[in-house]
Amino acid sequence: EIVDAITARLADGPLKGKRVLVTSGPTHEPIDPVRYIANRSSGAQGTAIASALAALGADVVFVTGPADVPPPTGVSVVRVETAQQMHDAVHEALPCDAAVFAAAVADWKVDGAGDSKIKKVAGQLPTLSFTENPDILASVAQMDTGRPRLVVGFAAETDDVLANATAKHARKGCDWLLANDVRPETGIMGGGENAVHLVTGDGVEDWPRMAKAEVARKLAARMAEALA
Amino acid sequence: EIVDAITARLADGPLKGKRVLVTSGPTHEPIDPVRYIANRSSGAQGTAIASALAALGADVVFVTGPADVPPPTGVSVVRVETAQQMHDAVHEALPCDAAVFAAAVADWKVDGAGDSKIKKVAGQLPTLSFTENPDILASVAQMDTGRPRLVVGFAAETDDVLANATAKHARKGCDWLLANDVRPETGIMGGGENAVHLVTGDGVEDWPRMAKAEVARKLAARMAEALA
Repeated sequence: EIVDAITARLADGPLKGKRVLVTSGPTHEPIDPVRYIANRSSGAQGTAIASALAALGADVVFVTGPADVPPPTGVSVVRVETAQQMHDAVHEALPCDAAVFAAAVADWKVDGAGDSKIKKVAGQLPTLSFTENPDILASVAQMDTGRPRLVVGFAAETDDVLANATAKHARKGCDWLLANDVRPETGIMGGGENAVHLVTGDGVEDWPRMAKAEVARKLAARMAEALA
Repeated sequence: EIVDAITARLADGPLKGKRVLVTSGPTHEPIDPVRYIANRSSGAQGTAIASALAALGADVVFVTGPADVPPPTGVSVVRVETAQQMHDAVHEALPCDAAVFAAAVADWKVDGAGDSKIKKVAGQLPTLSFTENPDILASVAQMDTGRPRLVVGFAAETDDVLANATAKHARKGCDWLLANDVRPETGIMGGGENAVHLVTGDGVEDWPRMAKAEVARKLAARMAEALA
């Protein structure tokens, strides 16, 4: 860790002078004061990306939900819980040269999450209704002015990974999209490895399965090329 | 930790030869392969209770959901995720002399939690319907045969703490109920301290706010008296 911090601070790499935003981890959406909706993102991939970007000299702003893994050293950390808070923190962190949206953001929040714990009443079942959370990736990728030069999204899919990812790439307006298959049997969500497809305007690249730190270094190197 | 383990193993205390079950932590209820419903229990109080019972010589079976704090040393650990899994693990761990149900168990599970990630479709909002989880505390407290001699429940309340706890004590059929106020402003859920009320057949005792380890030691000592 100390070595990481020194490396990051001394880093005189290709991203020196570039400000890069990275989101990471899950978001939590309250149901009531004690219950919430979460997801299985550990924050490992986003943390590795932030670390790899810092190692290339970037000035990294790291906006993270409640992740299992600690944030990397050598970056500015902004901690949030809900998707709305992450949206607001992201827009406060702009402008920047590039942004990587690796967080697994809740699409929906619970309508009217209350101040009182929902009580169990015999014979009654609760119903939850939802409203849409802001689309953080699209809100940055589609900015008219002040848009980062390079906007990178993630797509966590369990079915038709490539078709869904290609459609998402077009719909969101991001430059690159990293798609991965998060079916539980892949062990990717919460695990140490990732197998991603990089969707760009030029097509799809299939990267072999590798450590999340390797995916991060490969992505950071590609970002440095694109921003050079 | 090493000291704890040695203490537990050498413990020749008042609970020597007694088998005690402790549940702890939150449960997670899947919504789809990546999303789940959780709660803010850290597992700190249940872990402290298991540790305190082991220190008095008890043979502790510790059934824990995905908690923030690591399980104590010197106990048998059974890890579960959902309420149903916790129910099954508890009944497999019986018979025992006493049982403390400190876990924050989800009252409901999501109906038909699927193998595919729920997709975001423009203009559509998901609806979740629920079914009741088994009532673990009641299922043990109301056993006709093989019931532990001492069954201790917890009630985490945000409103009318004492009224709700007294009603729960009667309804569940447990011997003792420890009630606490988990409104976020108390800092109890996820924090280091607890302020509990002990509801027994004799009435209600208000314990002053103290460290969760102190609550645990006080409860373990009372249990040792009751089982003597």
